[in-house]
Amino acid sequence: MNIMQNKSLNTTKVDVLGEFGLIDHLTNDIKIKNKNTIYGVGDDAAVIKAGANQFLLSTDMLVEGIHFDLAYVPLKHLGYKSISVNISDICAMNGNAKQVVVSIAVSNRFSVEAIDELYAGIKLACSKYDVDLVGGDTTSSTTGLVISVSVVGEVDRKKITYRKGAKINDLVVCTGDLGAAYLGLQILNRENKIFKENPSIQPDLTGHDYILQRQLKPEPPVKYIEILNEMNIIPTSMIDISDGLSSEALHLSKSSSCGITIYENKIPIDYTVMNLAQEFNLNPIVCALSGGEEYELLFTVDQKHYNKLKKDPDFTIIGYVNDKREGNNLIASDGSVHELTAQGWNSISAKK
Amino acid sequence: MNIMQNKSLNTTKVDVLGEFGLIDHLTNDIKIKNKNTIYGVGDDAAVIKAGANQFLLSTDMLVEGIHFDLAYVPLKHLGYKSISVNISDICAMNGNAKQVVVSIAVSNRFSVEAIDELYAGIKLACSKYDVDLVGGDTTSSTTGLVISVSVVGEVDRKKITYRKGAKINDLVVCTGDLGAAYLGLQILNRENKIFKENPSIQPDLTGHDYILQRQLKPEPPVKYIEILNEMNIIPTSMIDISDGLSSEALHLSKSSSCGITIYENKIPIDYTVMNLAQEFNLNPIVCALSGGEEYELLFTVDQKHYNKLKKDPDFTIIGYVNDKREGNNLIASDGSVHELTAQGWNSISAKK
Repeated sequence: MNIMQNKSLNTTKVDVLGEFGLIDHLTNDIKIKNKNTIYGVGDDAAVIKAGANQFLLSTDMLVEGIHFDLAYVPLKHLGYKSISVNISDICAMNGNAKQVVVSIAVSNRFSVEAIDELYAGIKLACSKYDVDLVGGDTTSSTTGLVISVSVVGEVDRKKITYRKGAKINDLVVCTGDLGAAYLGLQILNRENKIFKENPSIQPDLTGHDYILQRQLKPEPPVKYIEILNEMNIIPTSMIDISDGLSSEALHLSKSSSCGITIYENKIPIDYTVMNLAQEFNLNPIVCALSGGEEYELLFTVDQKHYNKLKKDPDFTIIGYVNDKREGNNLIASDGSVHELTAQGWNSISAKK
Repeated sequence: MNIMQNKSLNTTKVDVLGEFGLIDHLTNDIKIKNKNTIYGVGDDAAVIKAGANQFLLSTDMLVEGIHFDLAYVPLKHLGYKSISVNISDICAMNGNAKQVVVSIAVSNRFSVEAIDELYAGIKLACSKYDVDLVGGDTTSSTTGLVISVSVVGEVDRKKITYRKGAKINDLVVCTGDLGAAYLGLQILNRENKIFKENPSIQPDLTGHDYILQRQLKPEPPVKYIEILNEMNIIPTSMIDISDGLSSEALHLSKSSSCGITIYENKIPIDYTVMNLAQEFNLNPIVCALSGGEEYELLFTVDQKHYNKLKKDPDFTIIGYVNDKREGNNLIASDGSVHELTAQGWNSISAKK
């Protein structure tokens, strides 16, 4: 038993595969054994048979220095966000989040009062969205803060919505508006830099409440799931927008073996995002296509629901589903057609 | 919105509360909202109603530098252990683990091949215990490795076993043998120290396979759950032994509002543990009472099952449940009675 040293295994850098590549690499040989496991890796949540209904299970980890910087993220907001992003995964399956377990690793630089702040945010989000905090693990860390949340949701098995299922000619719809969370991060980075260079200058965050809240304290898209339910609309495929509109559209098209076409001028952008993007010399469409952490929903739906969706300002029809052979496309405002890529901003930037 | 700095909250050190104190502090105001949440914080797993059956949900986090040292823990063993400890929590509720989600945070010092080793262990444990790996999150870390696993299990609602439920005169039973995992850690620490001082000396681990395996690659107590089921025995209360026999006995007695009496000379200790404890100048009973990470089960059961349990070498009857007013006691080999405390080794050490 040679256990004193791990083998030297430094051969392939993780960056070579990328996050999605690594997940594929680690999970492509997994075989499901339990009859009640309906769906495993590959969607926003796993699906487990539970009597007449189905349970959804998902997990997300937030790591200090990677997902957040405590220099400008208040702990209460961080706690709230850690719950929001998990509820969002359940929404993306057309389900309702019911229970969470929360594990945290904290170093001794955190006081009980600091952990209380974090939990105040966790509890606030749980309370607002009727989710029960039912367990967790609390441990030490040698350096930073790590928050790992797992969520259990419930969904009517007739209403469950996977990433697969989009049909040719379906409408492509997104909720709310996009680009704000990304710009919120730009403001925080800018003001943090100014503050570090000259601590006597007060951060100028006035007038940016909406954009900052979208970054710091995002709400999960629970209300859209409720509205769709009231409208008797079951999307054919759905995903939450955590990695930018392009990336999510590509996930849907890949899982559904189709192509997706999006119109640039249909993408919903809030006027505050429009104005602020100019200030940062950014294209707001780029922010929407590539900026992450929006926690809006992107879904496809049968054309028969066009009128219902068109009337409701919560939803924006931004494109349609096409044959796989036609690829994934972005139709720019001038009518030119660009391939939609995960780095969608490349083509857009080139165009400007 | 003052978001640029977190408030200075350094008032109470986490150590003041301890892990269990902190968990109580953070969770004592939680109110359950969902009808299908049967039981939340406070046992080995949360209980969720799922049709005729009940689902169990639990989570555990392993942090580099706190729970493991990669200098002497092979990644494959670590992956295996991360699944074992979670399955163990489901066993402690008399349930069967069915699904896990695994999140890892890794720094760029880990190669794809290193992560593959970790996942090989994760998959091996999942395969051995028929658990489906159904999702997770893979993220970067600025420093160490963090593994967070959440597990879903299933249990017949008539068989579910909580920490509460022990009755006066019940037998107190533990599975397998105790103290080995703690001694395994002592060997690893010793050999690692020798190796660091003189890298030319090969670690001497011969003859310690059993003890090392108990520390590095623990098996969850699945087989005992199966045997109890075959024997038609439903314990009145149960917990897994992750923090030492004393600590777990106190959890059962607190949750069940009773007292527990344990006989020192009944505690099952493997002969290899007996021998090695001498070498380390340790009391093997101390190792059993206070050494953690055993992943055996401690349970209470009605006296009517005495004969069945007595006959099976998998189980050892180590004591009985008494009235709360009589407290928690350890009866030493010489007949003297000592209060059983979470630091049970204090009284024992004093005695020797």
